[in-house]
Amino acid sequence: MSERWVIGVDIGGTNVVVGAVPFEGGEPAAIRTSFTRSARGPDAAVDDVIEMADAVIAETLERHGGTRDNVVGVGIGCPGPLDLERGVLLRTPNLGWTDYPMRDRLSERLDLPASLDNDANCATFGEWWLGAGRGTLSMAGVTLGTGIGGGLILNGALFRGASGVAGEFGHTTIDFTGRRCACGNYGCLEAYASGPNIAARAREGIEAGDHSMLVEMVDGDLDRITARTVYDALLQGDEYAQAVMLETAKILGAGIANVVNMLNPEVVVVVGGVTRAGDHLFTPLRSEVRRRAFDEAVAACRILPGELGDAAGVIGAAGVFIAAQGAAKDAAR
Amino acid sequence: MSERWVIGVDIGGTNVVVGAVPFEGGEPAAIRTSFTRSARGPDAAVDDVIEMADAVIAETLERHGGTRDNVVGVGIGCPGPLDLERGVLLRTPNLGWTDYPMRDRLSERLDLPASLDNDANCATFGEWWLGAGRGTLSMAGVTLGTGIGGGLILNGALFRGASGVAGEFGHTTIDFTGRRCACGNYGCLEAYASGPNIAARAREGIEAGDHSMLVEMVDGDLDRITARTVYDALLQGDEYAQAVMLETAKILGAGIANVVNMLNPEVVVVVGGVTRAGDHLFTPLRSEVRRRAFDEAVAACRILPGELGDAAGVIGAAGVFIAAQGAAKDAAR
Repeated sequence: MSERWVIGVDIGGTNVVVGAVPFEGGEPAAIRTSFTRSARGPDAAVDDVIEMADAVIAETLERHGGTRDNVVGVGIGCPGPLDLERGVLLRTPNLGWTDYPMRDRLSERLDLPASLDNDANCATFGEWWLGAGRGTLSMAGVTLGTGIGGGLILNGALFRGASGVAGEFGHTTIDFTGRRCACGNYGCLEAYASGPNIAARAREGIEAGDHSMLVEMVDGDLDRITARTVYDALLQGDEYAQAVMLETAKILGAGIANVVNMLNPEVVVVVGGVTRAGDHLFTPLRSEVRRRAFDEAVAACRILPGELGDAAGVIGAAGVFIAAQGAAKDAAR
Repeated sequence: MSERWVIGVDIGGTNVVVGAVPFEGGEPAAIRTSFTRSARGPDAAVDDVIEMADAVIAETLERHGGTRDNVVGVGIGCPGPLDLERGVLLRTPNLGWTDYPMRDRLSERLDLPASLDNDANCATFGEWWLGAGRGTLSMAGVTLGTGIGGGLILNGALFRGASGVAGEFGHTTIDFTGRRCACGNYGCLEAYASGPNIAARAREGIEAGDHSMLVEMVDGDLDRITARTVYDALLQGDEYAQAVMLETAKILGAGIANVVNMLNPEVVVVVGGVTRAGDHLFTPLRSEVRRRAFDEAVAACRILPGELGDAAGVIGAAGVFIAAQGAAKDAAR
């Protein structure tokens, strides 16, 4: 067989994921996950990636045949801000790395051409290429996690904006006199609906006198409340947890309604841990978008959870590399 | 001479403007403005447009030579929502017209090919083609008036979205528990910063006890306060009017920061009567955007008043027609 493979690398605040993605699209043939040991610095992280990539390549070729020549490139996704042109991580608050030439380092070590883009763009591209957004021309991807990020597909291509910032939905204002955000701004979507802020809102309500089984679940140590414990309490019928999730859904709905009225996309794909809440999240979220956005825009737009789970970033990182080859070919015509 | 001309038609809630725009770009050779007598219905408005267009064409050909064959098309801008494919006004709250085939009516009456797009898209296209946004690949246009609208240029072309709604910045939420908006939503940018809502906020403050020379200016009849009287009071040194304008600028800044973080455009062009306030508006507005949006996005983005004044809509409507000819030509290659 002569199938071509692209190595996708998804470097996150918690995990590094590496997989071998078919050039023509499809599930990774092999995939590895490890913790991001960011404190040891980016060179050590690159060592880890190389080790994982070698294992992934070996497993892929063993299963599907071919030689290392069948592996044609590597696509990397990283938290930003990045210098896309030079392939450099400028600074990564969650990792503590600065000015690191991630693209060229991995390219040299693997002896493969490489691309670098931000993690939310990669997850968005993955869901658009092979996941919940496939077949559309315009999609907004919203990534819910420790922070809230996002990416945009417009006219069938990733839209990065004038300096690579486009799609920062987490840092759009939904309450201009509201909660302080980690970015310094007030009233950002992220200040309400990121994992840690869902937990913080739950904690604040309890401190203000609301009753919830959450208190018992964390043995009275409210600092141990996470978005996950809120969701677990909700599943056990806790009314307070349900109210917190409902408010989260409405706030996310307001933020997504802004995307819908501003960009009128065919689909908004929401990915990340919080989407495990399923209909508890999506039913009130969709209803809030319907209430807030224009009928014509709502009618044209599906709001869906991602389909690729934790592999979205790896698949998308590889996809961004592949799309760049296509664009280079088009330009050479 | 064999210069080609396109008739631009800008149908607004208050005025109809018709001009002859050079196909290769430039100031209108002749321009006419009249009141939109919307109560008489759209057919009567079309009669008015035909009369104005005939006068504009006659004046243009008299000045520049040529025959009616030098006029090659007509571009129309109208308030939405529109059915762009069929060239139909679906409903126009400000005009009271519904389901009217404006594009084909004007095309038949003028015996010219025609295009129809929404008024804010046309003003945006005009400012991008020949005004404050020229030479950029990405621009957001924000139109401040009775309502707040907008349009988007992305990758060097008008971006309309999946159902023609894209760019509705006025109906993005900046305070999810805030003021009721005419659209039914709460906390829209328009609910604070449109002309009538600037006036309403000024009125409310006075009713709540704030002192202002505005009271005298309207002989105690607070309903006569408009955005214009607020601006006049500001110019006369009224501190309350200054505070209202400062708050308006900050609120607009929050809304525009959302556009900047979401789309990372090269330029945001703000058009409409309120921009007469000049630095009183733009200095605090830019400072609020700088405070709220990401440094990399702020650095890449200029925030400017429009340069084309009331002619932006006419120039843009003609430009949209011309761009469509170019796109048709590209497609035929």
